[in-house]
Amino acid sequence: MQRVGLISRHGAQEAENLAARVGALLRERGLQVWHCSLDDERGLLSAAPELDLLIIFGGDGTIVRAIRATSEHGVPILGVNLGRLGFLAEVEPSEIEHVLPALLAGEYQIEERMILSVRVERAGQILLDTGAVNEVVMARGLVSRTVRISVDVDGHHVFSPTCDGIIVATPTGSTAYCLAAGGPIVAPGLPCVTMVPIAAHLGIAHALVIPSSRELSLTLLKGDDSVVTVDGQVDFRLQPGDRLVTCASEQLARYVRLADDGYFYETVLRRLGWADRA
Amino acid sequence: MQRVGLISRHGAQEAENLAARVGALLRERGLQVWHCSLDDERGLLSAAPELDLLIIFGGDGTIVRAIRATSEHGVPILGVNLGRLGFLAEVEPSEIEHVLPALLAGEYQIEERMILSVRVERAGQILLDTGAVNEVVMARGLVSRTVRISVDVDGHHVFSPTCDGIIVATPTGSTAYCLAAGGPIVAPGLPCVTMVPIAAHLGIAHALVIPSSRELSLTLLKGDDSVVTVDGQVDFRLQPGDRLVTCASEQLARYVRLADDGYFYETVLRRLGWADRA
Amino acid sequence: MQRVGLISRHGAQEAENLAARVGALLRERGLQVWHCSLDDERGLLSAAPELDLLIIFGGDGTIVRAIRATSEHGVPILGVNLGRLGFLAEVEPSEIEHVLPALLAGEYQIEERMILSVRVERAGQILLDTGAVNEVVMARGLVSRTVRISVDVDGHHVFSPTCDGIIVATPTGSTAYCLAAGGPIVAPGLPCVTMVPIAAHLGIAHALVIPSSRELSLTLLKGDDSVVTVDGQVDFRLQPGDRLVTCASEQLARYVRLADDGYFYETVLRRLGWADRA
Amino acid sequence: MQRVGLISRHGAQEAENLAARVGALLRERGLQVWHCSLDDERGLLSAAPELDLLIIFGGDGTIVRAIRATSEHGVPILGVNLGRLGFLAEVEPSEIEHVLPALLAGEYQIEERMILSVRVERAGQILLDTGAVNEVVMARGLVSRTVRISVDVDGHHVFSPTCDGIIVATPTGSTAYCLAAGGPIVAPGLPCVTMVPIAAHLGIAHALVIPSSRELSLTLLKGDDSVVTVDGQVDFRLQPGDRLVTCASEQLARYVRLADDGYFYETVLRRLGWADRA
Repeated sequence: MQRVGLISRHGAQEAENLAARVGALLRERGLQVWHCSLDDERGLLSAAPELDLLIIFGGDGTIVRAIRATSEHGVPILGVNLGRLGFLAEVEPSEIEHVLPALLAGEYQIEERMILSVRVERAGQILLDTGAVNEVVMARGLVSRTVRISVDVDGHHVFSPTCDGIIVATPTGSTAYCLAAGGPIVAPGLPCVTMVPIAAHLGIAHALVIPSSRELSLTLLKGDDSVVTVDGQVDFRLQPGDRLVTCASEQLARYVRLADDGYFYETVLRRLGWADRA
Repeated sequence: MQRVGLISRHGAQEAENLAARVGALLRERGLQVWHCSLDDERGLLSAAPELDLLIIFGGDGTIVRAIRATSEHGVPILGVNLGRLGFLAEVEPSEIEHVLPALLAGEYQIEERMILSVRVERAGQILLDTGAVNEVVMARGLVSRTVRISVDVDGHHVFSPTCDGIIVATPTGSTAYCLAAGGPIVAPGLPCVTMVPIAAHLGIAHALVIPSSRELSLTLLKGDDSVVTVDGQVDFRLQPGDRLVTCASEQLARYVRLADDGYFYETVLRRLGWADRA
Repeated sequence: MQRVGLISRHGAQEAENLAARVGALLRERGLQVWHCSLDDERGLLSAAPELDLLIIFGGDGTIVRAIRATSEHGVPILGVNLGRLGFLAEVEPSEIEHVLPALLAGEYQIEERMILSVRVERAGQILLDTGAVNEVVMARGLVSRTVRISVDVDGHHVFSPTCDGIIVATPTGSTAYCLAAGGPIVAPGLPCVTMVPIAAHLGIAHALVIPSSRELSLTLLKGDDSVVTVDGQVDFRLQPGDRLVTCASEQLARYVRLADDGYFYETVLRRLGWADRA
Repeated sequence: MQRVGLISRHGAQEAENLAARVGALLRERGLQVWHCSLDDERGLLSAAPELDLLIIFGGDGTIVRAIRATSEHGVPILGVNLGRLGFLAEVEPSEIEHVLPALLAGEYQIEERMILSVRVERAGQILLDTGAVNEVVMARGLVSRTVRISVDVDGHHVFSPTCDGIIVATPTGSTAYCLAAGGPIVAPGLPCVTMVPIAAHLGIAHALVIPSSRELSLTLLKGDDSVVTVDGQVDFRLQPGDRLVTCASEQLARYVRLADDGYFYETVLRRLGWADRA
């Protein structure tokens, strides 16, 4: 390990201070350190191919943004939790200095997780082509009217619910928006995506868990003012007839793991407040 | 009964034809008939005080719009179902001519149902003051980001969920949007409103059923691009800090009922597809 | 106030000690104190008509049992929370000595809450006739097979779900079993009961909230080994064809309230872990 | 294909007649036909090793029972739907004679699906060791009291919900009991099991989808009168401390498929009443 990138949000004081301290420690040990703000996407993109590790100081939103920006280069990332829930972070701020030696000695594993390939098509043209770490949503826009969406799997029609929207989530995203809409918690390694309607009419409230190798397509049948949103960060305005196509991307998110994953479920449930109470 | 209003949507051919036929039958029997399009709100408002009955040819959306426009005069309404589900309509198109004699002979009851008083306040000023037949919603706007809303009952703080939005519904509205968000079906006569969060984080998915005499207030804490929507028909853009205040209105919706209400629940469940299958 | 009853469960050491201490304080002030174990139902029943107040040291289960045993005499009850959640208790153990003076000075209100009249009929004969503080359930028995239950309201058939069972709950019971089955939280004063199916097939998962003046009847159509359970405390084995009939009882549970009820909702949500986190 | 077994339930007249007719047709074509009642488990078990195909005339319950009885020999099965929903059947009664030629010509695929290995242990001893086609449930017994269950994955503690019970389902079982408890619909080929609590307290209502290679263990902490039920057909009475251990079995259920699986989701949703309405 030679080149380490450090990422924090501009103006997030605690994150910037911690990044500076970690940067100093890394330089003392002879590593090249590159520190930039998450808001400098161009800088991040040009540095990414050279990095052996990216340490991200922030909440899940910051980590998701950094993964989306660097995933094509497969840079391993390590999240330091400066957010509230911290599903994606591996260590707490108080732990980061303590784990640096193990990290530099290569005593860690890489956990690879699915990224969802997301494409929006209009009349045969591709208007958006990106990746989702957590989920992509096709949903109503400004006004509180329902939309109607036709769902197809590998070209076969499934159904056309009337609803606020439909979420398509990776296993990683199953503990985010998907869960709020009633979806299941899905183990990270499973080769599947979860599709959940939001506030669907007539009781069609259940999630569908389908192989991530399938092409899942959502076509907007009705809803003038609708939108596709990727990871709660990228928005795209739709017209009726537009089609959102998703399947597993060839790229993978690569998370540095310092401990075994045996405590995955207990950790998730504790963060949700569902673990055993004392 | 002397003056009957007939309402249909402009351009809804089946509804306009049926209204014309019913109008002719009523005139034959010596009644004054006033027929206008739902889109002529000004005409409707000026005619309303004079009407003894308003027959509405359309779906639930049309009926709701007509009630909202005329509720301050308490005109009894009779819905003829030209929509899909028809929770608010009393008769099917094929039945209307058949029931006219009973109607004109006064052989019917009036069922009174709550209208929700809806007020939006900003910095002490009232920016919107209207009534809701089904529900009012405070929700995220265009982009798929969560909002945070502080909920108070009679001035006492309850909680502040992070969610897509919150629905406050009358019993009438309990079979509409509220149901899609997971709410209960509430009997029409009960003096209560139902509050349901939409896609709330951390498992706070349950509805609250509270007395309609209570003042329920929703304050937008976080969410730049949020909106209040009344009955899916009136939209109002919000700023953080805006407050939505609801309680039972003094006005009532007055529905003409030709049969007793014994079959209310079975009828509702049949429309939802939950009644016994053959 | 002259005669005060104290109730605790036999063998619940903390409860018995606290009851003894409170009993001594009450005797010092010249009151007649009657202390008995909840397990001595006969003693409790014979003492109840003479009591001006019943202080119950225990969890919600203990309080429910004491109310069921004394409700026909309308004895006001005060719960001291020695359980986990404590929806029915008014004070914590650490507060009871502190509130005694206000209590004896009559500085409290009585909150009256519905008790559900519960009757099981077989071939016209009444086999069980009791009251429910929280809920009555008709459900599958030992083996995990579904039952089929016909639901009627005031003699009109509603539907016949296939499910694990059906819960009929008072507003008080809406935060107990009913909530676990997906039901709404219902304000205590509302004149309604909530009916919720447990694990119903084909998506019929919504609760029905109906006026408590209505007679709600559940007839067991299919399920050899089924059971009616009242408040999780009284069980009755059923045969197909048996009918459970419920409506609001003329008796009322009478709770001593030392504070106003403005914080009802916040208190309930805090107990459920849904209130704002710090 | 030389030896075909035909299975129907004793006394199910329509099924027995259809089986007899199909048996005659098969014999005409020179095949050996073995026809027995589902109730003759010993006969079924001794015949199974010799069979090239088992045609089952009945509902999903009958098909499940036949698979459980023959799965160790991997006999391909073809279900003829004489039940109500028919998730497991491949053809309708009216189609079976029509598809026989294709079947005998080998024009079909075999779809292999997971069977769940189910073991109940008490004090280190194995008391039940069987397979589940749909699901295994650990749940309360006769009386409507909650149970408390400790959940572990690969020896790591997850949580200990208080509930009516917990369902562990194969993808095949995801459209059965699991769905009624709020679980997702899971595509048949996915290497996962779904765990869903039934009526869990404190809002822990979400399903967990975990790799089927993991050992999932449920230990009964509290609940005197509890039971393990396999596929709604086999019951086993528990004592506190008993442990239910599940993981994917090495055996597979083998279904004959006459068409491609492209319409799987649409077919499932249509059976549930959720497909597009005309």
